[in-house]
Amino acid sequence: MSNMIDVAIIGAGPAGLSAAVNILARGKTLRLFSSNENYLSKAERIDNHLGFYNMSGKDMMKHFIEHANAMNIKIEKEKVVNILPFDDYFMVNVNGEIVEAKKVILAMGMSKVKEIPGEAKLLGSGVSYCATCDGMLYRGKTAVVWDQSHEAVHEANFLKEIGVNIIFVSKKVRPKELNSDIEFILGTITEVHGNFKVESVDIGEKNIKADAVFMLREVVAPTALIDGLNLENGFISVNRSMETNIKGVYAAGDCTGKPLQISKAVSEGLIAAQDAAKQIDENLNKEN
Amino acid sequence: MSNMIDVAIIGAGPAGLSAAVNILARGKTLRLFSSNENYLSKAERIDNHLGFYNMSGKDMMKHFIEHANAMNIKIEKEKVVNILPFDDYFMVNVNGEIVEAKKVILAMGMSKVKEIPGEAKLLGSGVSYCATCDGMLYRGKTAVVWDQSHEAVHEANFLKEIGVNIIFVSKKVRPKELNSDIEFILGTITEVHGNFKVESVDIGEKNIKADAVFMLREVVAPTALIDGLNLENGFISVNRSMETNIKGVYAAGDCTGKPLQISKAVSEGLIAAQDAAKQIDENLNKEN
Repeated sequence: MSNMIDVAIIGAGPAGLSAAVNILARGKTLRLFSSNENYLSKAERIDNHLGFYNMSGKDMMKHFIEHANAMNIKIEKEKVVNILPFDDYFMVNVNGEIVEAKKVILAMGMSKVKEIPGEAKLLGSGVSYCATCDGMLYRGKTAVVWDQSHEAVHEANFLKEIGVNIIFVSKKVRPKELNSDIEFILGTITEVHGNFKVESVDIGEKNIKADAVFMLREVVAPTALIDGLNLENGFISVNRSMETNIKGVYAAGDCTGKPLQISKAVSEGLIAAQDAAKQIDENLNKEN
Repeated sequence: MSNMIDVAIIGAGPAGLSAAVNILARGKTLRLFSSNENYLSKAERIDNHLGFYNMSGKDMMKHFIEHANAMNIKIEKEKVVNILPFDDYFMVNVNGEIVEAKKVILAMGMSKVKEIPGEAKLLGSGVSYCATCDGMLYRGKTAVVWDQSHEAVHEANFLKEIGVNIIFVSKKVRPKELNSDIEFILGTITEVHGNFKVESVDIGEKNIKADAVFMLREVVAPTALIDGLNLENGFISVNRSMETNIKGVYAAGDCTGKPLQISKAVSEGLIAAQDAAKQIDENLNKEN
């Protein structure tokens, strides 16, 4: 248990960074993971977050990241693909690396990810979000790689090289970097079929036989990340301490719902962090 | 009704300023009142409000006020002494000036004011927080002025000059600036007596006959400011939109309870402002 960290934070926007700063201010250890560009960076101009007048989202993010860096907080550009709860800690799968954490704070922003029919049911039974993690299971078999992020081509080539028979599905033209011996289909996956494991996928009108589907999105939907997470109108449900229905898992920022505002995200990151730190202290006291 | 403003904000710390910035960002009118120095200004160093690393409270307040000023928001250094709810607006008594506002946001920070026995019962019946407002009622009568703010001496002299017989009570030595013909008692008022109007006050062991007591504190306690406001553990109760039990009255920041943190105050100011602006728009739509 010596590699156990106190808190794993997923997302490095205003909520995730505020959580990180406050976890550290409470003397706890943390790791901060983020796999996609923050939405705030694209905002042209923000006037309503007190203390920052007439500032671009990019400049504001710069201030936030500088604060974190000044406290020696590093953003790890890795995708979290799964979170498994145990009795009093979590196993966080960070693109294949297993990180053990006492608490988890979800701060991945507003999820634009829509699950497709069959996806949740067959997750872990052929549906995978991580080529590095599950690739070896499908050597000599057929897997569809669904292009939904900049890393999809790289992952498809990797799977091909370790001996998986790959069909690459994308709504864009065939990428130049894709290995020439990989089959390419133009389109979008609309459904995954199979009873106990993946048997085929629908791509528009076509039905394609396959043993696995790698859905290589920028981020994983919160409900796919961790089993049994309660949503309300598509956002993660939290109590006043920003804890979700799963004890030890917090959520903060846009992923908890409106208003989708920086001030709110920063505050929720703080509240989640303070409560997580408090719970960790209380558990330590119980053990002693 | 032409002098009606949209929102009166009481308090100009992080919560009040954030509310002001967001009221303006929603195209609504506001006035912002603050009678005491903000608590944050005294903080030596703050590290856990994202975007501001290793900063004194004074410097942070400077950033906040600059943001407000850049949007042409002025802080009026006046004390709000009473708020009267009407059907669809409020009459806010700002040290004698009546301001009409559609919504009110309370952001006066953590109240350190403790009401004394008899105070609430006799408020408006001899107990007064405002010499300018009520002084004329006590010409030719005896009033105790209780020194609890820097303006108490000035107000006592004013009352004396308009013909009120004044007893000045203070736990400090007799102020040099106090008119020489004002009686001075060293001590603190512990209780106000009277059935339908003030008859006497207790000052330590002494009982002094008086027709009025002017309690000239830096701020007025929220419950004394507005009738029927619900508290919970000494803090103002709010719902998720930061609205109190009195429709149209919001609260934000330290006055709503823990955590007593800048990030939370800024967020609550935003949430209160956005909801107040939304309700104003909805009422306008109903009228049209």
